[in-house]
Amino acid sequence: MEFEESGIGEECGVFGCVAAGEWPTQLEVAQVLTLGLVALQHRGQESAGIVTSNGASPPTYTTLKGMGLVSTAFTPEALLKLRYGNLGISHTRYSTTGISELQNCQPFVVDTLHGRIAVAHNGELVNAQALRKKVMRHGVGLSTSSDSELITQLLALTPPIEERDGPDWVARIKNLMSETPTSYSLLMMHKDVIYAVRDPYGNRPLCIGRLVPISKLHSSGVEEEDTEGWVVSSESCSFQSIGAKYYREVLPGEIVQISKHGVKSLSVVPRPEGDLPAFCIFEYVYFARPDSIFEGQMVYTVRQRCGRQLAIEAPTDADVVSTVPESATPAALGYAQQSGLPYIEVLCKNRYVGRTFIQPNTRLRQLGVAKKFGALTDNFAGKRIVLIDDSIVRGNTISPIIKLLKEAGATEVHIRVASPPLRFPCYMGINIPTKEELIANRPEFKDIAGYIGADSVHYLTVEGLVSAVQEGIASFQEDKMISSSSKSSNRVGHCTACLTGKYPVELEW
Amino acid sequence: MEFEESGIGEECGVFGCVAAGEWPTQLEVAQVLTLGLVALQHRGQESAGIVTSNGASPPTYTTLKGMGLVSTAFTPEALLKLRYGNLGISHTRYSTTGISELQNCQPFVVDTLHGRIAVAHNGELVNAQALRKKVMRHGVGLSTSSDSELITQLLALTPPIEERDGPDWVARIKNLMSETPTSYSLLMMHKDVIYAVRDPYGNRPLCIGRLVPISKLHSSGVEEEDTEGWVVSSESCSFQSIGAKYYREVLPGEIVQISKHGVKSLSVVPRPEGDLPAFCIFEYVYFARPDSIFEGQMVYTVRQRCGRQLAIEAPTDADVVSTVPESATPAALGYAQQSGLPYIEVLCKNRYVGRTFIQPNTRLRQLGVAKKFGALTDNFAGKRIVLIDDSIVRGNTISPIIKLLKEAGATEVHIRVASPPLRFPCYMGINIPTKEELIANRPEFKDIAGYIGADSVHYLTVEGLVSAVQEGIASFQEDKMISSSSKSSNRVGHCTACLTGKYPVELEW
Amino acid sequence: MEFEESGIGEECGVFGCVAAGEWPTQLEVAQVLTLGLVALQHRGQESAGIVTSNGASPPTYTTLKGMGLVSTAFTPEALLKLRYGNLGISHTRYSTTGISELQNCQPFVVDTLHGRIAVAHNGELVNAQALRKKVMRHGVGLSTSSDSELITQLLALTPPIEERDGPDWVARIKNLMSETPTSYSLLMMHKDVIYAVRDPYGNRPLCIGRLVPISKLHSSGVEEEDTEGWVVSSESCSFQSIGAKYYREVLPGEIVQISKHGVKSLSVVPRPEGDLPAFCIFEYVYFARPDSIFEGQMVYTVRQRCGRQLAIEAPTDADVVSTVPESATPAALGYAQQSGLPYIEVLCKNRYVGRTFIQPNTRLRQLGVAKKFGALTDNFAGKRIVLIDDSIVRGNTISPIIKLLKEAGATEVHIRVASPPLRFPCYMGINIPTKEELIANRPEFKDIAGYIGADSVHYLTVEGLVSAVQEGIASFQEDKMISSSSKSSNRVGHCTACLTGKYPVELEW
Amino acid sequence: MEFEESGIGEECGVFGCVAAGEWPTQLEVAQVLTLGLVALQHRGQESAGIVTSNGASPPTYTTLKGMGLVSTAFTPEALLKLRYGNLGISHTRYSTTGISELQNCQPFVVDTLHGRIAVAHNGELVNAQALRKKVMRHGVGLSTSSDSELITQLLALTPPIEERDGPDWVARIKNLMSETPTSYSLLMMHKDVIYAVRDPYGNRPLCIGRLVPISKLHSSGVEEEDTEGWVVSSESCSFQSIGAKYYREVLPGEIVQISKHGVKSLSVVPRPEGDLPAFCIFEYVYFARPDSIFEGQMVYTVRQRCGRQLAIEAPTDADVVSTVPESATPAALGYAQQSGLPYIEVLCKNRYVGRTFIQPNTRLRQLGVAKKFGALTDNFAGKRIVLIDDSIVRGNTISPIIKLLKEAGATEVHIRVASPPLRFPCYMGINIPTKEELIANRPEFKDIAGYIGADSVHYLTVEGLVSAVQEGIASFQEDKMISSSSKSSNRVGHCTACLTGKYPVELEW
Repeated sequence: MEFEESGIGEECGVFGCVAAGEWPTQLEVAQVLTLGLVALQHRGQESAGIVTSNGASPPTYTTLKGMGLVSTAFTPEALLKLRYGNLGISHTRYSTTGISELQNCQPFVVDTLHGRIAVAHNGELVNAQALRKKVMRHGVGLSTSSDSELITQLLALTPPIEERDGPDWVARIKNLMSETPTSYSLLMMHKDVIYAVRDPYGNRPLCIGRLVPISKLHSSGVEEEDTEGWVVSSESCSFQSIGAKYYREVLPGEIVQISKHGVKSLSVVPRPEGDLPAFCIFEYVYFARPDSIFEGQMVYTVRQRCGRQLAIEAPTDADVVSTVPESATPAALGYAQQSGLPYIEVLCKNRYVGRTFIQPNTRLRQLGVAKKFGALTDNFAGKRIVLIDDSIVRGNTISPIIKLLKEAGATEVHIRVASPPLRFPCYMGINIPTKEELIANRPEFKDIAGYIGADSVHYLTVEGLVSAVQEGIASFQEDKMISSSSKSSNRVGHCTACLTGKYPVELEW
Repeated sequence: MEFEESGIGEECGVFGCVAAGEWPTQLEVAQVLTLGLVALQHRGQESAGIVTSNGASPPTYTTLKGMGLVSTAFTPEALLKLRYGNLGISHTRYSTTGISELQNCQPFVVDTLHGRIAVAHNGELVNAQALRKKVMRHGVGLSTSSDSELITQLLALTPPIEERDGPDWVARIKNLMSETPTSYSLLMMHKDVIYAVRDPYGNRPLCIGRLVPISKLHSSGVEEEDTEGWVVSSESCSFQSIGAKYYREVLPGEIVQISKHGVKSLSVVPRPEGDLPAFCIFEYVYFARPDSIFEGQMVYTVRQRCGRQLAIEAPTDADVVSTVPESATPAALGYAQQSGLPYIEVLCKNRYVGRTFIQPNTRLRQLGVAKKFGALTDNFAGKRIVLIDDSIVRGNTISPIIKLLKEAGATEVHIRVASPPLRFPCYMGINIPTKEELIANRPEFKDIAGYIGADSVHYLTVEGLVSAVQEGIASFQEDKMISSSSKSSNRVGHCTACLTGKYPVELEW
Repeated sequence: MEFEESGIGEECGVFGCVAAGEWPTQLEVAQVLTLGLVALQHRGQESAGIVTSNGASPPTYTTLKGMGLVSTAFTPEALLKLRYGNLGISHTRYSTTGISELQNCQPFVVDTLHGRIAVAHNGELVNAQALRKKVMRHGVGLSTSSDSELITQLLALTPPIEERDGPDWVARIKNLMSETPTSYSLLMMHKDVIYAVRDPYGNRPLCIGRLVPISKLHSSGVEEEDTEGWVVSSESCSFQSIGAKYYREVLPGEIVQISKHGVKSLSVVPRPEGDLPAFCIFEYVYFARPDSIFEGQMVYTVRQRCGRQLAIEAPTDADVVSTVPESATPAALGYAQQSGLPYIEVLCKNRYVGRTFIQPNTRLRQLGVAKKFGALTDNFAGKRIVLIDDSIVRGNTISPIIKLLKEAGATEVHIRVASPPLRFPCYMGINIPTKEELIANRPEFKDIAGYIGADSVHYLTVEGLVSAVQEGIASFQEDKMISSSSKSSNRVGHCTACLTGKYPVELEW
Repeated sequence: MEFEESGIGEECGVFGCVAAGEWPTQLEVAQVLTLGLVALQHRGQESAGIVTSNGASPPTYTTLKGMGLVSTAFTPEALLKLRYGNLGISHTRYSTTGISELQNCQPFVVDTLHGRIAVAHNGELVNAQALRKKVMRHGVGLSTSSDSELITQLLALTPPIEERDGPDWVARIKNLMSETPTSYSLLMMHKDVIYAVRDPYGNRPLCIGRLVPISKLHSSGVEEEDTEGWVVSSESCSFQSIGAKYYREVLPGEIVQISKHGVKSLSVVPRPEGDLPAFCIFEYVYFARPDSIFEGQMVYTVRQRCGRQLAIEAPTDADVVSTVPESATPAALGYAQQSGLPYIEVLCKNRYVGRTFIQPNTRLRQLGVAKKFGALTDNFAGKRIVLIDDSIVRGNTISPIIKLLKEAGATEVHIRVASPPLRFPCYMGINIPTKEELIANRPEFKDIAGYIGADSVHYLTVEGLVSAVQEGIASFQEDKMISSSSKSSNRVGHCTACLTGKYPVELEW
């Protein structure tokens, strides 16, 4: 909800599952796909889709798509249609283009010379327009505006191998990767296999989990033969809800094949010499669920470190520390710990305020976002508050909150933002308001405190954010690398383009 | 409803409209498209779709699709989205494949190198499988099983002209026609033009109408400048409901361009030397609405002639003639006129009996189709009835009706069928039960009267049907030909494949 | 549909079913109730309701209600809820008040001191306002505007018997009947019994049928022990669709008890001395389905007689006779038979034109009702038509049809109306436009032919209509009376108030 | 969600609004009613209803009802119907009976001799069965099982005043109160007035707010003439979201009249001599939103005091304190403050896990409630946790959470419950599992820690809870009483029946 108001939005979440062992499987693949998707719901609420395959020759695919939340899009009756699936991929979508139609809903399924394939994609191709033209010049009509269809047609048309030679999907995927550098985390299903692919910059997340008996979920000694299936997901937070153990990340540039026989790394496509990885730093700041693990560290812990760093960079003479519930809470607790100020709650959020209809130009509209919050007056009346927010995008949501707190008795409200000012557009999968709408690019920003009614405002520095993120990665890099050959592709690096304007690739690529 | 029970079904109806004169038009194009489609609803009730274009450079297309009847699929609110359309095409679909999904709903819209195109199709390509493989071999992934997508991709990929040369759609359409002989009546919209195309055999119908001021709708002296727009439709029955005058048929093999400047015949692609046209004779017998005009004659009149012919071929010693309401009524009236027997009504049909849920294996199921009918007992008690039906497909619907009439007091029931026995599958757009299900191919057919409980049964002969159809065409051919150059393509001929097994083209084409 | 446009509408249909023999029954009571209701759908399309009882002590009632047609209102899943019913009543409603809400949907169910009762009602209480006030003065709050609730509360509150005495429903029903003379055909269910009640004037129809094995449906020798259940319905046309045999009418003023033990006449409440019965003559003319039986004669036959009578009263010098499909067809055939003119079809009706959205003030609106019809031009071009309509209410629907026929080539169109002009409001259950809206009360009526564009117009006389209706009743009265004691209440008489202004009871009753 | 799983549920929330000053009002009454209801959504999610009146003579009422959340039940289009309302009442319902039907949705509206009234009710009449029988003995049929209809009919039938005398609603309400002692917080609308009533024991909450210009929302000097309208609500948490200032509570036994002229206390009906008030203590513990104010104190503060008290009663040798998000958070922070242990977060909750379909008997079902939570492992691995929960009802939800924490690395998990064990049913509006289902009544309770897998378990004592609640009331009582005459009815007292079995009134009342 805050996302919608702030105007920042993630594009998508992808999730896949392959049952291990003999087929037909006893594993409830359709349910795993559904619940896995529910756990990625924060990455997109516009539409959802699932495609399963029975894995036979030829395979039977079953597709289910719907608008809205997963729980709305799929009825129990509809899910029954998927019950013969032995593997499948699923997708939840956030609309960045404003064209909210079932037709754009992923996964995208097509018949090719080499059989039916299904594709689910998180990210945004930086050179999508050039690629569309290339595909159309080949004589292909494109029926949607989605990158997923574009990717699918690119996989279908290159290289032009004869039917008898077989598809060689790995060659086709490599060819696709040579056509576009970033950003994509991709699942492609063909018959009985899922290919999990991450672009060479690793801009969007993707990780693998192992389904084990619930009773062995958290025990350390899980045997190979305990594996009931494999899952692959945008975020590891989905693993708890389906009873999977975290296995590993898909590396930047890696093509992984997941089948009933297990997980196999097929290739790691390198970046151009000298380029660092460019994992989106806003996944840590904003998008990911706090219990997800990226690069060996928990997102919650990174946010807490951001809060600590903020307390170091911008200490405040105040009585209490609090949060704008609830995404800023880890940072607020970090700030409190570092500063020694007591942590309290000052706002109570109404979870049911959603799409309630408000007529324009009424007194109720003046209440703004404050409609959603109740002030916990007794907790802070007469006190000076440090209020931690995770970001300030347009500046129009924090202002009514400050007003609410002051009118309810706060003597001072100091805003501390646990990320740097957002100044630049993203072309790699995040929906950000135009430069003109971003408060950091507007004249009011010179007196941002005055503009939003705060007693003071401080943002975390870019350096502070990067160090808070990268501090926890070092040891991980040494310990957990699965392959020495891929070391070079795993030097630490993050995309901070929206904060610094430094894009990981040339935009005219 | 009878169609569903008999198991015969039409595939589709197509409809298009272009506003004449200056744009933005005052003509209510979206409403014309909707009402035109409603008038073709008998050709398909599964889903409906409309695509409009504002005709600008580049054009804005708006698409609306939905499941079910036109009135269900499109809400008034949704139709508002189409209000800026200056031209458009629409489609209503009957599901032959059993895959009833929004995704298969037409028109199909794609972006090509030469801009966005929309395609609506009635018919079935006899060589669809070979064409699919050809398209996929070119590297195109096909996302649906519909011929419409296949046609669209064929139009997009051939010939491989450079962007700067422009699309040359006529060459592309001719190329398409060289790839597949039949059956298709096709509407293709590109920017500000609709191309109306009929396959060289003229297997599916297509005709053109002119929108004039309502006040001049039926006056003979309509001036060129009175034209408010042009419509193109599977059947002319749609013209009355939108206030259009019948203009002419699209000829077999003809490519017609319809724009705001008027109607222009671009080409007539010939059939192979010696081949006759092959307009589906079952359009006359069964599918078309009785007020539609094909080949210069009204369907109702043909059906009435079939009834007369039937009375000549199979006279009956009986008291009264009646009909199975209501598609057989014209034939019944023809039979009555020819035989001199009085025409009466014996059955009253409940229009609301539709998809009411009946549990299997109950006594109510034994009532069968008789549930839908009330016997008008007083009209026929103690009398011998000649009951005209338009066709007997499986033999399971006429039987309970005969039982109902007899139990209500009819002393004899003689069945006269106004078409010959159905014996062969159709590969050109009509959904017919398998050969094994057709009563005419079953052992019971030897004693069909006994099997269905009638006192006697006679079918119209193939010769009788053909002569009843073609008798009205002769004068028409001489009078109304629009172009002498196309004479050769208009010799009289009809497809009777489902009755005779003689298909107009080699099936392995 | 015509009803809606003409502005005349029936209020409701009621239907009940009790399984005979041992309970739990094998009879599919819920399906019988549903299909019976579907067969009464022409009496009301706004909402539908079913209440079943298992008949136990205490009984379990199950209620299902929904908006729209029966097929829309009840899903197969929902109908499953009713599967334990051993008896039940159902109702389909036409909205006369404009308040179209689920809340007004019948049957109405309440808990009383003597257990739960359910009530379904067809008709309109002439003294409803006075009764509402009486009930409210007793201290009862009324939650709907429906007469059904009013009747239910009247049954609950009178007479004030103590719980230990039992309800004595017959006394309560008689008391209700003493409070209001007409109009009501009523079904009341209590535990294991349905009471079927018709007001002393017999203004609304009600009849009883017997469910027998389908195999014995039309044989004459049905034994007592063959009875599978009893049904009670507004019209006998519903019997065919559920496999029931017509048993008899409920008499004016009669209270019939239907239980698993059979049908029992409890009482016949007499009319005031000298009053005749007043069965609504418009049931014959317009509302009822042609295969229904009233007063021993088939509605179709009466309509045919009206056509014959019309030919006698208003002969025409013309070439052909035809009908406005399809309610006027029996009268048209009657006119043709009497006049010797040939009967043909001139109009083809599009069954799918329904609630399609048409923007106001467009050229399409000018087409009016003609949108629904295709002209069968070849049948009548150059001919003089006698066109039979069943009634002309506002005069706005026949006019575009005449125009359509003339423009399509009819040289003359003579309108013959198979009923007299409508001039007065109905207070007994029929929705009729206001006096000012009725064409017969307007100045234009003086030149009605000119006004609607016909070459001549003639209506059936009131005397002609009454004799056409009553001619078939005489013999029936002598033959079939079930009880000599009730003879006096069955002298022949009909309500012609909407035609003559003579109401069967004082309106200030 | 937890409520549903724990099996405790509130019955309802009520909300009303009257526009001040001249009518038609400029105040967006329908929106205020809707948003007010949204803020009470935690009190009931099954259905919602709104009734507005224009306040004229006679008034026009408009009713809107729907199933599900307020945002689902009311579309923007539907809300437009309410736009002429000058006052109105609304209701949100939690289904306790399992009969989830639109019919039971409140407010209940009826026509009485004295005009139409609408009633919304929170609570449960302890003597509902006796009252139902009394009403039915009077001859009233009851169409629903809801207490709201019962109350409405009681208001309608007593006393039997003649129409000319006027309704005297206050006498009728007093009569109702003499018939039933508890529990009810009631809104009754008649024409242009809302009566707000609270039962003499004050068992359910009800308070009044004043709508002021948004700009003056939190300033202290609001003038009489600034009043834009009055609102009345189950909880004051709704005031923030509509821009209202807290005005005062409705007192136990008080009848308040709210009109455009202001708020007027009409009467305070006393309790029997010696009886204390009996405000439901579980409103503090569990149901109410933390920012609501009861008896002059914020619910959040009471919960925090419960946490402090729990730390005193049950100190723990542990490393960190945490919460089961998120209702237990105030108590957890209180426990942390009192104990000096650091407060951390250990669980991350997936807000989207809702009604997702899980097949029974699958491995996913074994995950239980843990599906909803992600473990924030890094925060607590290797530590001893004190986990605060607000209540343990059945014992089946806390157990999987403990398992999850332990498997994720917690060395000890000590459960501290911020309320006493639930042992007795509630007959006054709260839905509690049967005695047999309550874990505190089961044999397993003797070793509750072992049963749920905790290292130790302690509940707050009843005395501890009561003192935590009442400690904040003392000063309030002296300061804020609006009327000295009502002092006696405001001595401090709470209903602890579900904990102690001591009910405020005799149950056979």
